[in-house]
Amino acid sequence: MLGINLCNTLNAGGAEVTAFGRRLSRPTSLHQDVKWISGHFDDVRTFEHAVRGQEFVFHLISTTIPDDSNRDPAADLAANVLPTVRLLEVCCKEGVKKVVFSSSGGTVYGIPSRVPIPESSSTEPISGYGISKLAIEKYLALFHRLHGLEYHVCRISNIYGPFQQGNRRQGLVATTIRRALLKEHVEIWGDGQVIRDFVYVDDVVAAMLCCCFYHGPYKVMNVGSGTGLTINQVIDDIELVLNEGAIDRSHRPGRTVDVPRNTLDISLIQSETSWQPIVAWHEGLRRSIEWMKAANIVANPYTAGDRHEQSRGVPQLKS
Amino acid sequence: MLGINLCNTLNAGGAEVTAFGRRLSRPTSLHQDVKWISGHFDDVRTFEHAVRGQEFVFHLISTTIPDDSNRDPAADLAANVLPTVRLLEVCCKEGVKKVVFSSSGGTVYGIPSRVPIPESSSTEPISGYGISKLAIEKYLALFHRLHGLEYHVCRISNIYGPFQQGNRRQGLVATTIRRALLKEHVEIWGDGQVIRDFVYVDDVVAAMLCCCFYHGPYKVMNVGSGTGLTINQVIDDIELVLNEGAIDRSHRPGRTVDVPRNTLDISLIQSETSWQPIVAWHEGLRRSIEWMKAANIVANPYTAGDRHEQSRGVPQLKS
Repeated sequence: MLGINLCNTLNAGGAEVTAFGRRLSRPTSLHQDVKWISGHFDDVRTFEHAVRGQEFVFHLISTTIPDDSNRDPAADLAANVLPTVRLLEVCCKEGVKKVVFSSSGGTVYGIPSRVPIPESSSTEPISGYGISKLAIEKYLALFHRLHGLEYHVCRISNIYGPFQQGNRRQGLVATTIRRALLKEHVEIWGDGQVIRDFVYVDDVVAAMLCCCFYHGPYKVMNVGSGTGLTINQVIDDIELVLNEGAIDRSHRPGRTVDVPRNTLDISLIQSETSWQPIVAWHEGLRRSIEWMKAANIVANPYTAGDRHEQSRGVPQLKS
Repeated sequence: MLGINLCNTLNAGGAEVTAFGRRLSRPTSLHQDVKWISGHFDDVRTFEHAVRGQEFVFHLISTTIPDDSNRDPAADLAANVLPTVRLLEVCCKEGVKKVVFSSSGGTVYGIPSRVPIPESSSTEPISGYGISKLAIEKYLALFHRLHGLEYHVCRISNIYGPFQQGNRRQGLVATTIRRALLKEHVEIWGDGQVIRDFVYVDDVVAAMLCCCFYHGPYKVMNVGSGTGLTINQVIDDIELVLNEGAIDRSHRPGRTVDVPRNTLDISLIQSETSWQPIVAWHEGLRRSIEWMKAANIVANPYTAGDRHEQSRGVPQLKS
């Protein structure tokens, strides 16, 4: 869903945008002026075609989510890191000016010794997902050193907002809104006291664009709200903003992949670029609820919107 | 050559040892009581057979050297990290008590902000080799967390000593001794002022055994001499100990993969275990020269000793 938002924003700004993803059919929510190329990330020739002639590449592809990645870390590595190294080779060959990578502020650090977490913290991921993201960061630095390929890493916290369907096992905000609208039960892993940093998708898109045009010395920046909310607080707030009565909820045992608290220190990106998170939490929730209502998921809970949109695109910008 | 020394030492100590490597024929320098299994690291079934029934696994396999790894980082990743994740799965399945991994103190840190480098330093490798080693460290921590597999990481500096042939593009000490004995020219990358930490192989074997039986809280330890020598100093000292006249040398441009200085802070392993590096530099050189002379490389420069021994084995100990 970050991909859709990023492509549409770039397109609205006048850029010539190509999106690459594994969906066979073009996502309906993608603006018609965005070129769509369908392909698998492990097929070098397809993405070579997508990268050709592009000035900037935004790499948002991730084939797994943290919890799944621990079931088969080797598969996660093969599906995400290996093709990324091939992608970087293609970017060098095609003369791409810069690669902006969506890394994971929620997983690369592992269990933080302090919050909010600065970029200089140690990186001890507790999921295959986090190890893959971290390895990709290291390869970006290597390709920069060896071949001069410019790059920027955005370590993003938990994104929420429009185009997040809430019908996959990802995205607490969207899942909760969806279930609340459908009057379904919400299940919480653990006691709900786990703390997370939630950032509105438009703010993330803006951050990635700032980083794309940033020329300072820092290559790795946290992108989040900088504030932490417990899972329980998130659900309470959705209840409040939605104003349709109590959300039916229960708790189940926590997952080993969950770190107890994660809030990102965003002072680096704030001081180095003009970026600030500008969409306030309740306002972000309100917009997410509005989008979900407009997507009419109550009438069509299994068909509304596009499936497989989440974190799939490599939008490329030709400006 | 670490593998040969480790296997023979374990065997001498009464352990039942199985060695696994890609050589088709059994290394002649391997003690006859050490069981030899030949296989490729990307063939899970072969190493599954090697791991079965083992109490401890020493993972020393590396299919590349730092400089080569940058020519094709994806191949390095596929050949080293992917099979290691499979190996860890096999170790869990077979009930292995502990995996001891030979990581690289010379490459995982990248360009250090200070020397000697403590384990807590940031890890920003400048070679695919270093990224692969670092990723393996992270997977070891992950498997420990997810499946309780015990592990220990030894970040080893530059090993030298017997069984290092000096006929491959690795091992400054062995290469220099070999060339000096053959009255061949020695080529130095850069101005020779690059600083490295050299550690005698017997000290490394002893360190790996200490780490194998260590039960304290630290999982990652530097293993080196703790002191730095310039490349020029190494060659001067070999000249001195060998005492066969001046070594003919010249300089060629430095490699991008070389960090300017690398000396490991070994205070952690010294305080946590009983280990100390005990073989003094000149004594280590004397023994290395003696071994090289006994291997009769002057008479048979292309056949003496075993080829492909370097860093190939996964010796396994059944105690």
